[in-house]
Amino acid sequence: MNARDAQVADSPPTLRARRLGLYAQHQSIAVMRTDCHVCRAEGLASRSQVLLSAGGRQVQAVLYQADGDLVAPGEAALSESAWERLGVAEGAPIEVSHAPALDSLASVRRRIYGHRLDAAALQAVVADVTAGRYTDVHLAAFLTASAALPLDEQETVDLTAAMIDAGERLTWNAPVVVDKHCIGGLPGNRTTPIVVAIVAAHGLVMPKTSSRAITSPAGTADTMETLAPVDLDLATMRRVVDQEGGCIAWGGAVHLSPADDIFVRVERELDVDTEGQLIASVLSKKIAAGSNHVVLDIPVGPTAKVRTEEAADRLGDRLIAVAAHFGLAATCIRTDGSQPVGRGIGPALEAHDILAVLQNKPDAPGDLRHRAAVLAGAALEIGGAAEPGAGYALALATLADGQAWTKFQRICQAQGGMREPPRALHIRPLTAARAGRIVQINNRKIAQLAKLAGAPEAKAAGVTMEVMLGADVGIGQPLLQLHADTAGELAYAMEYASRNPDIIEIAT
Amino acid sequence: MNARDAQVADSPPTLRARRLGLYAQHQSIAVMRTDCHVCRAEGLASRSQVLLSAGGRQVQAVLYQADGDLVAPGEAALSESAWERLGVAEGAPIEVSHAPALDSLASVRRRIYGHRLDAAALQAVVADVTAGRYTDVHLAAFLTASAALPLDEQETVDLTAAMIDAGERLTWNAPVVVDKHCIGGLPGNRTTPIVVAIVAAHGLVMPKTSSRAITSPAGTADTMETLAPVDLDLATMRRVVDQEGGCIAWGGAVHLSPADDIFVRVERELDVDTEGQLIASVLSKKIAAGSNHVVLDIPVGPTAKVRTEEAADRLGDRLIAVAAHFGLAATCIRTDGSQPVGRGIGPALEAHDILAVLQNKPDAPGDLRHRAAVLAGAALEIGGAAEPGAGYALALATLADGQAWTKFQRICQAQGGMREPPRALHIRPLTAARAGRIVQINNRKIAQLAKLAGAPEAKAAGVTMEVMLGADVGIGQPLLQLHADTAGELAYAMEYASRNPDIIEIAT
Repeated sequence: MNARDAQVADSPPTLRARRLGLYAQHQSIAVMRTDCHVCRAEGLASRSQVLLSAGGRQVQAVLYQADGDLVAPGEAALSESAWERLGVAEGAPIEVSHAPALDSLASVRRRIYGHRLDAAALQAVVADVTAGRYTDVHLAAFLTASAALPLDEQETVDLTAAMIDAGERLTWNAPVVVDKHCIGGLPGNRTTPIVVAIVAAHGLVMPKTSSRAITSPAGTADTMETLAPVDLDLATMRRVVDQEGGCIAWGGAVHLSPADDIFVRVERELDVDTEGQLIASVLSKKIAAGSNHVVLDIPVGPTAKVRTEEAADRLGDRLIAVAAHFGLAATCIRTDGSQPVGRGIGPALEAHDILAVLQNKPDAPGDLRHRAAVLAGAALEIGGAAEPGAGYALALATLADGQAWTKFQRICQAQGGMREPPRALHIRPLTAARAGRIVQINNRKIAQLAKLAGAPEAKAAGVTMEVMLGADVGIGQPLLQLHADTAGELAYAMEYASRNPDIIEIAT
Repeated sequence: MNARDAQVADSPPTLRARRLGLYAQHQSIAVMRTDCHVCRAEGLASRSQVLLSAGGRQVQAVLYQADGDLVAPGEAALSESAWERLGVAEGAPIEVSHAPALDSLASVRRRIYGHRLDAAALQAVVADVTAGRYTDVHLAAFLTASAALPLDEQETVDLTAAMIDAGERLTWNAPVVVDKHCIGGLPGNRTTPIVVAIVAAHGLVMPKTSSRAITSPAGTADTMETLAPVDLDLATMRRVVDQEGGCIAWGGAVHLSPADDIFVRVERELDVDTEGQLIASVLSKKIAAGSNHVVLDIPVGPTAKVRTEEAADRLGDRLIAVAAHFGLAATCIRTDGSQPVGRGIGPALEAHDILAVLQNKPDAPGDLRHRAAVLAGAALEIGGAAEPGAGYALALATLADGQAWTKFQRICQAQGGMREPPRALHIRPLTAARAGRIVQINNRKIAQLAKLAGAPEAKAAGVTMEVMLGADVGIGQPLLQLHADTAGELAYAMEYASRNPDIIEIAT
């Protein structure tokens, strides 16, 4: 067959770009009219994967079709993700065609059928994921295949490397760069600002990037933001770290392991955690952040991410082994994950706990101080600032003598100035329905309660715990306080509590 | 914890329903403002799964958020699927809350980790899928898990039963009800109308429901629609079948195995075919349609769905075994899948081929006649209208003596009146670039070419083949003709052909 008879078409017809103002996370969406001539000519239908091209840039998107007034003739309306990736102006001409077939999907299919993937295959998968070329169907298939036949150590190493390579990688002008991470999170477990202050007070470099909450009532970045600016660009981060040895910045401004955010969203929707993906997720971010020493906090408890000590040990061993492939020295610390940490759950409420510990207030939550000192102690030891076994005591001493508080204030100043965390307008207790002993605290439901009260969007909202496991309570005694900015949110949280009597269980 | 202090919230605040006019196939979408008070109160974020409630009906949807003018304050804008399922009027009050956790996802997770599912678990999965409660992530995980560890025969039986139970089930007042199905499809393989005419001419009952094209240039319903109305409700179908013994109707008006359409879309996106899913897909539709005898056409070829004879035999054996569990007698016929069937590819072009065969025209495509007679012969035999081995000859005789043509005309009349298939305005040949022998015809690319020319939306558009495998051609000789309604579509198809010289391969 030849082109002799083929009257080669002119360059494909274009549509006018329109910003739809539609937020769909990483998902790029294009909306075009059902009667659009490009849809007809290209054979595009609703939910087709399309390639948007403009000004030399290309973005893959899912197509939805619309009739009525939603999209005008000749327009292609784009979601925010598509709009930003394509970088067009309102009304600019864009071309729309069928998205090309993705070669890396052949690897996904091979993995489904039980074949292991090599480094090159995983690099190609992660590159396509990072570029937004995988649909939810493709992402879920890859992650499911990696769960059905778990990633082995080599695959985990290769996936980690691919995830690092897909994003930015920071370097620091210091021989020892320390990081920490908590596996799975625990309400109120906001040790990071305290750990950074202690570690940096001893001259170690700890350029900490943290996340904002996605499904939790507060991320470290949300909490820290009530104390100082966290939205630092890389230049500012470098200046703060050069000056103070440490920072507590939001990681979103630097693009470390961007595939991770995409995988995590799908894993959450699937509620499937695979060890290999978890390890690649955690370590790729740490390695990309330029650290060579990391302390990993693994909370264990019935409603924590890791539920048994055996699972924690196995996960810890695998984390250390994979980290070693990248020259990253990891220490895993198994901690109590049976109840929330500290008193506050919610950005500002957690910040108040942090300040109480740093300022040696008499009512500072002892569990938060203890945990922060354990983790800081381990960091001091692996960083060479404390002899083995002496880290914990040194960390506590650094809190007690005010050095950590001084360092924390200096870091906040360097990040843009210290702030006073806000207080909520509405506070109301939830009380014990009967006398007895606290035998169970459901971390997930406590977190949900704090979110219904408004956290993390409402910085001051959340929960403060009035009891811990093992405490004896009398009837009517407060179990926790709800903090909210509006009466409506308070009512929402109260209503949830009334429907869920097992948030805190009392045995008589 | 008690409700004493819980000021139980009034019923959740409502939003006003708005019809967005957005087409997203089965996917239900709700668009709400980023500053929506319900999002804030419920903790809903973009891509949350939400439950829409109105007038006693509930629909699960994915939430996208928008700012700007897209959605007015107090509104929830719904995609067509959400709008239809919810059945609300413009401006009607709807409640929006977090979608409840799906218990059946625990079964999906168990399946991912290698546990087989029993009938009750599969019933629950399929019920949730049918109700639109599974996201693409959930669907892909289920299908991937069923591919990584293939469904065994019992699971395939249980899945088939669950898919039947999820939809309507037809019954016919006849001891023998015959059906046919082609596995995977092949361009131009439009034997169904011919088979129905032959079989019904011999007094057997064949109430055929067919699909429209989804990704192909024509479905049987699209082709048949150029000859007679196919959008029959169940009462009309019954009347036609009572009167003529057979019908060729669009299956969309009756809801047979509705989960199948949802699974098929995801399998296509994943490009993963699993035998168990394929069997459940095919058999659930046939059994739900009330047939107790089925002839299965399994085309085998390098660009067909089934690529080797061994695969066809294994698939056939499994199909027969699973069908037997439901009292369905299946006959599998392995056919040549190496090239398109007949001459035309596209709704009207295929209809012209069908008419040529039924009318015994001298230029009728012999391969289409042969295949239709083979399948009709098998149907006559399993239906008891022909002795074993005598079906093919009887089918040919029924064509030759005009009985099939008479019956076909009567069926068309009963369905609402016979029509003349249209002809395209623009016809242009693609010619051989060199002399030689046709050694390969790529079914998938031929189908794509027909779609670019406008099929199936443009009924007259598509491709007519001028050569078959093994033919010798001279340079410049036409290989196929492109048919299009517009010059633009013709140009598109020509351009595709010029970029794909391997659509038809010529060896010198």
